Order: sequence, then structure tokens, then C-alpha cells
Amino acid sequence: MNAPSDSFAATRDRSADLAAEVSAHPERFRVLTGERPTGRLHLGHYFGTIRERVRLQGLGVELWVILADYQVITDRDTLGQVRDNVYHAVLDYAAAGIDTSASTIFTHSAVPALNQLMLPFLSLITEAELHRNPTVKAELAASERALSGLMLTYPVHQAADILFCKGNLVPVGKDQLPHLEATRVIARRFNERYAPVFPEPQALLTATPEIPGLDGRKMSKSYGNAISLSMTADETAALIKKAPTDADRTITFDPESRPGVSALLTTAALCLGSDEHTLADKLGDSGAAALKKLATDAVNDYFAEHRARRAAFAADPDFAATVIRAGNRRANEVADHTLDEVRTAMGTIY
Amino acid sequence: MNAPSDSFAATRDRSADLAAEVSAHPERFRVLTGERPTGRLHLGHYFGTIRERVRLQGLGVELWVILADYQVITDRDTLGQVRDNVYHAVLDYAAAGIDTSASTIFTHSAVPALNQLMLPFLSLITEAELHRNPTVKAELAASERALSGLMLTYPVHQAADILFCKGNLVPVGKDQLPHLEATRVIARRFNERYAPVFPEPQALLTATPEIPGLDGRKMSKSYGNAISLSMTADETAALIKKAPTDADRTITFDPESRPGVSALLTTAALCLGSDEHTLADKLGDSGAAALKKLATDAVNDYFAEHRARRAAFAADPDFAATVIRAGNRRANEVADHTLDEVRTAMGTIY
Repeated sequence: MNAPSDSFAATRDRSADLAAEVSAHPERFRVLTGERPTGRLHLGHYFGTIRERVRLQGLGVELWVILADYQVITDRDTLGQVRDNVYHAVLDYAAAGIDTSASTIFTHSAVPALNQLMLPFLSLITEAELHRNPTVKAELAASERALSGLMLTYPVHQAADILFCKGNLVPVGKDQLPHLEATRVIARRFNERYAPVFPEPQALLTATPEIPGLDGRKMSKSYGNAISLSMTADETAALIKKAPTDADRTITFDPESRPGVSALLTTAALCLGSDEHTLADKLGDSGAAALKKLATDAVNDYFAEHRARRAAFAADPDFAATVIRAGNRRANEVADHTLDEVRTAMGTIY
Repeated sequence: MNAPSDSFAATRDRSADLAAEVSAHPERFRVLTGERPTGRLHLGHYFGTIRERVRLQGLGVELWVILADYQVITDRDTLGQVRDNVYHAVLDYAAAGIDTSASTIFTHSAVPALNQLMLPFLSLITEAELHRNPTVKAELAASERALSGLMLTYPVHQAADILFCKGNLVPVGKDQLPHLEATRVIARRFNERYAPVFPEPQALLTATPEIPGLDGRKMSKSYGNAISLSMTADETAALIKKAPTDADRTITFDPESRPGVSALLTTAALCLGSDEHTLADKLGDSGAAALKKLATDAVNDYFAEHRARRAAFAADPDFAATVIRAGNRRANEVADHTLDEVRTAMGTIY
């Protein structure tokens, strides 16, 4: 596999051409993207990826969204309220504008033929290559937990998730490029060794804005610093009210030394389509309360329609389950077909 | 996981009790055993495990046999003539006396729900535990190949192979005990973390005779030193004729310094129900030609009926495929049922 920096440079160089090709021929592309359903989706998910999915689907690209429930336990012991999290994700997708009937939204654990691809794919990659994966490396270095077999093999499940449906376009941030490189390597090796079954998916680099939690740390449910898409306007206001700021009445954007103030500026800027410095100049020396009011109004205005649509979808108690069941059915059909091709290529037809 | 020696002592201590329980209540046991279909089955398979399966099935134990086709590529690049090897294995099982309609004989790659168990199971074991497995360790130390992800995760597929059908009795040689220990650990952890779904399978220690290849080395197709169960009497005679011996006319059993002579003695002793020293004494100083005649006759007499039955089964060109298809159907039914229980236990029902 290439070093991450090589992949990045090559992908960046190709990204303008690729974006043009996607616009001109959206029917040539199938996007695979998704989330680990570890909790409610929040602003980070929305601005980081969900908005981009809506844009791509709007262009005419076919959209597949995996709710990677097994990946919840790569780095924790239990699945938590996984079903609840899955259903809430579906509501947020629909509210955000994803056409749930034109896309395939499915859960990892519901598609055995997808998961079976783990076995042949594991034979195509070495232990050393698994260790070179940055997520695995980071986990190994940082975690106090012993590295689980599931985390170690993470690049291989991801390859199975993408390749089972022959996804050929994967929106990624820079950090995720090496994962996709592992998928490309596995596809290439399978095709060379057996028969040309899989595409080598392309990375569509998305300029994911860095959106920190309200305290400036990484946005995370466990830190209580994330504005969930399922929150009401009042809950949003209450959460922002509690957000840590400082005593300096002059508002400036300085994430290093003023993490709370800066996080509120970023949040407001994203919702207002503005930028942090412009907003800071506008606020001048009006203090943290004014900043909080600006951020609260910005979030609540931006997501007012999302919340209204969300409530409308949620009014049908079967909506989310119906979407997931249809997605799982479709994912199984496609996975079974791909596995048949894999068996034919490998000669394991009896 | 326990150290191998602890497992061995504990298992040995329990083995008489377990054997008595199996005889008294065979209906309580489901055996899972199998082979990697890397080539034709040979005398080593027959005396090492197939004979024991026939005995257990005769007692009334339910028999499941996996032809682990994906495990062929744990340590090699291609699957070779895997379908041919699978079908020939079925002919040998039937010829050896396994009741193919009362047992479930199936291929690994045909059972997606079995393979899906890999994902939750990988979350229950650490990388360090995978590395402690002796097969993985030996491969890492001995091989010139890079350790593949599939070899590294070998203890986890084996756990899936055994647990998907709730196999609770696994005939093993001493070397394989640590694998079973990994399966027991995975079953225990799953049951503790989620719900009691899996049995902790017991090891039935089998006194596997060490049966070397005709040159005294490990019996292996690649060394050309193995008498396949599918060979004719003439092919057997020709292979034994080529076997390396030495110029000393006095026949003695001395595997260290006379590997070829000793291997022929072991082969003859197993087929005659005798032992190597008795046969050596009887042969006295009659030389290698007499030893080879003795061994050839012993093998050809012992397997005459096996070969006749084999030919009868092979006369139906659909026999092996029909057995495998029925086994795969049954394995899928049971695997789907177990996977449903796993999903319920984990809360991944949508």
C-alpha cells in the first residue's frame, strides 16, 4: 500500500477531474458511505457528511448508506441502544433531504453475504498491512484497551462494506484515505488472483469542515458537547447556555487559547454560511452572552425545517423500520449476487 | 486463555469421564470436525480422524463435517482443484463408513451466516490472544510468507465453524487443544456479555497415531509420500516400491536413523492391527523388499473394501454433489437460526 501522503497527493490531484466526471455522468457512480450507530447524529455528522450525501444524490448518484452496527464494538464492550440509534439516524437522513426510497440504507449485521467477504479478503492482506493502517495504529498507541481482533481487521470489514455493493465512489476526509487505499488493494488483488469482480473505488475528497464540540474538544456524545440533530430548539439553547466560554468580552477566533468561544463561532458560521472572523468582528466586544445568542439563533434557524421534517417522519412509528427493512432486503439481494460471483471466481461452487 | 499445558492436563484428566458420558448419552453430543480440502485424503486422515468419526457416529453421536475451503488460502495463494478435492473427500467419507445421510457434510464458503459470526467473535478476542495461538505462532516463526490476515484470525474462524451449529464435542489431537480453548473462551465471553447462546465445546482427546509419509517425513501431497485413499492397489504398490529404504537387510524400528523402513513398519502395523516391533521381529533379516511386500499387501487388504465401496459411490456422478448440497442446505438452516439468536442477544433486530 502507498504511504498515506502519496495517496493524499494523488487523490487531491485527481479530485477536480473526478468531481467533473461525477457531475457529467452521475449514473456511473455508486456511493457507499455510512456511520457507526453509537448515538444520536449531531451537527458534526450533518456538516461533515450528510449534507454531501444529499448533494451527491441530488446530482443523480446512487446512494448506499451503511449503519455499521458491528463496528460499534470495535472499541467498546456493548452495542448500547443500537436499534434506537439506527432508527434515529434514518429520521435524520430523511429530514436532511436524503431520498430514502431512492437510496439503500441498511445495517451491517443484517447482510451475511457481505460479512462472508471478510474471509477471502483477509487472505489478501498481511498482518503487517493491517498494522500500518492509521486507525489501527492510533488505537494501538492511544487506547488503554487491548486491541480487539475486530479493530485490527477494521480495514477488511470496510473493504467488504464498500465492495459487496461495488461501491465505486467513497466520500472521505483526508484522515480516511488510507482505509480506502486498503479497499483498493484488496479489490486489485482479488481481481488479479481470481477474476475481475470488483471496482477499485475512488475517493471523493470532501472538504469536511472541522466542527468541534461546544467546549472546543472533539464533538462527542460522551463529552456532552454535541448538538444532536434530534434536539429541540430549547434543548439546543440550554446546551449552548452551558457551554464554557471566558471572561474576555472581545470576541476573537482563536481555537488554541479560546476553544469555547471559537467553537461557538464555528458553529454559528457553518449555520449562517459565514466565517468565524467575520462573525467575531461583527460581535466586537459584546461578550459571550451575545455570541451564545447568535449561535443559538443560527443553529435553531438553520435546523428549523430539519426538525419539522424530522417530526413529520417520526409521526409514522413504522417509518424508520420500514426504510431499514427495505434497505436490508436490497442489500442482501446485491450481496448474494456478489458472493455468487466471488464463488464462481474462486471455484467454490459445489 | 490457559497455557496449552494446563489445557492438556485438564482435558486428559477429564477424558475418561467424557468418553463414558459419550457412550452412555450419545444423543447429548454434536461433533464438529473436518478437513481443509487441499488435496486427496490419505492414510493419515483415515487413521488420524476419519476412523474416529465413524466410531462416534456408530455410538449415536450427531456428526457434522466441515470442508473448510476458505482455510485452504490461510497459507497459500490459490484454492487449487478445491471442488474436486471436496467431492473426493465425500467419496472417502462414505467409503469409510460415515453415514452421509445421517451427517451434515458441508463447505465453509457455502454458509454466510456461519461466516458472519466472525464479526462479533473478533470483538471478543484480543490481538495478543490471537498471537498466542500456537498455529499462528508457528506460522509466524516458520513461514517465509508474510502472515496473512486469514491465518492470524484462524482461531476465530474455527470458533465460528464449531459454534454456529453448537457443536459441543470436538475430537482433537494434543496439538489442536489451544484452538479449542480459543473457541471456549469466545463462547464464554459471548454468553457472559450478551446471553447464553453457545455451548463451551469439550475436547475429546483422540490417541491419534503418528503416521509418517513413506519417506519418514510429515505425510504430505507435496512430498509425494502419501498413500491417498483414492489410489488403486497398483498405484499403492508402485508408490511403496519407490519409497526410500536402506541397505541393511535386518528390519528394525528406528524412526530417527531409519525413517523409510520405520514408516513402512508403521503403515503395515496400522493396517494389520499390529505394532512395529512385532512386525520387525517377524521380518528379521529378510530385507526391504519383503518389508515393502508386507506393507503393500497390508494396505491393499485393509483398503480393498474401502476401494470397492468408493467405486460404487463414485459410479453415481451426482453422489458427492448431492451430499454436499444437502449438507449445505442443512448447515444454512442451522446457521441462520443461530445467527437469529445472536442478533436477538445483541439487540441488532430491526
